[in-house]
Amino acid sequence: MKKLILLRHGESTWNKENRFTGWTDVDLSPKGLEEAKNSGRLLRESGFAFDVAYTSVLKRAIRTLWIALDEMDQMWIPIHLSWRLNERHYGALQGLNKTETALKYGEEQVQVWRRSYSIRPPALKPEDDRYPGFDPRYRGLASEDIPLTECLQDTVARFLPYWNETIAPQVQSGQRVLITAHGNSLRALVKYLDNLSDQDVLELNIPTGVPLVYELDDNLKPLRNYYLGDRAQIEQAMQVVANQGKILPPS
Amino acid sequence: MKKLILLRHGESTWNKENRFTGWTDVDLSPKGLEEAKNSGRLLRESGFAFDVAYTSVLKRAIRTLWIALDEMDQMWIPIHLSWRLNERHYGALQGLNKTETALKYGEEQVQVWRRSYSIRPPALKPEDDRYPGFDPRYRGLASEDIPLTECLQDTVARFLPYWNETIAPQVQSGQRVLITAHGNSLRALVKYLDNLSDQDVLELNIPTGVPLVYELDDNLKPLRNYYLGDRAQIEQAMQVVANQGKILPPS
Repeated sequence: MKKLILLRHGESTWNKENRFTGWTDVDLSPKGLEEAKNSGRLLRESGFAFDVAYTSVLKRAIRTLWIALDEMDQMWIPIHLSWRLNERHYGALQGLNKTETALKYGEEQVQVWRRSYSIRPPALKPEDDRYPGFDPRYRGLASEDIPLTECLQDTVARFLPYWNETIAPQVQSGQRVLITAHGNSLRALVKYLDNLSDQDVLELNIPTGVPLVYELDDNLKPLRNYYLGDRAQIEQAMQVVANQGKILPPS
Repeated sequence: MKKLILLRHGESTWNKENRFTGWTDVDLSPKGLEEAKNSGRLLRESGFAFDVAYTSVLKRAIRTLWIALDEMDQMWIPIHLSWRLNERHYGALQGLNKTETALKYGEEQVQVWRRSYSIRPPALKPEDDRYPGFDPRYRGLASEDIPLTECLQDTVARFLPYWNETIAPQVQSGQRVLITAHGNSLRALVKYLDNLSDQDVLELNIPTGVPLVYELDDNLKPLRNYYLGDRAQIEQAMQVVANQGKILPPS
């Protein structure tokens, strides 16, 4: 039996401000730092140790990984970074407040962009400051690989080659793997592992900073999966994600 | 012209307690954390950016690198870890206070162990708790590669293959490389680059947390080298290293 651990980064400063983040390289909020530390503690207390870790090239995922490994006293394991683990690119919505966007375009349209499998948000123009090609970390990418916007289907399409060619062979060979990534890149993986329909994946809400354990057979078919930690807290965290982009009554 | 940056980790809790550290995985002291941050700031302000970083598997070097990269907003570059960049292994002296060791064996003997090129300190026994073979991070090593003690010559011998086969080709191909390591693994590299004699390398004191810039020609022969930062502070830091293991008058 193989085990694979998925970890969504802790709350970022823009999760907190309820803004569309995508590939914007925002940092963890103080709460996110705590979540990252807590995830490392949970993993350590549950007896997990890793041979290798994978993460995106965005600092909220990298820092979550660093903090978790520090807490586990495993700073010395190799870390591989790939843009293919990045969050879904949110196109021209990146930087906008989700509630403001909902008031402008309507809550229904925002929910479509957030939750549709195949409808893309408005695209960035390549001359936009936010175009990833201007960022040195994407220098090595072919221009056709650099997204101007993505729907979840696009994220799945660019994530899966990295899973199939790089991560899955490591898991299959018995390496104990930790993946620290984002709400939508992890959804892409869970969709693939659990063979979720395009519709079912839209209902899936992965909470920030809670380790998700997959037990897999030798063909990497899931036997079972579970979150580490307190059940009530996890359900509350999932509800927070589900509520983003709704026009909430003033609290 | 190629540039290569060497960075000795910030002060560790055992540097501060004046104990022989070697492969013991001690963390940075509060002053060491500051030094690491300052080194990243100096690199950023001097306009440096990196394509790849190399470090040991010891957390004082890894954390120094993480902090420096964070300060430079370069957390996303690949980091390669190798035991070949570890500090010199100090054998059975690991964990002993340098001043106590000097009182027990004589200051001269301690200076020999600290500063001789080819005389090894007393060896660990393989059943000693401190034997690296018990540590999972060295699991992949052949037992003949696991040191029981090292003189500087031994450190040079196990460091150079990694330089020649892994790091040097990257520098030669134009990659901008940062190496974060230890007093003696960096001495090994400087000895090789500057073609220092076995005697001259003993006089070389690399201060903690100060970036050392090498400008190299296409054959990786040094054109010049210099430390970043304030000259008086650097000289004071070098003196601190030189004084360790001497019986100092009470302050």
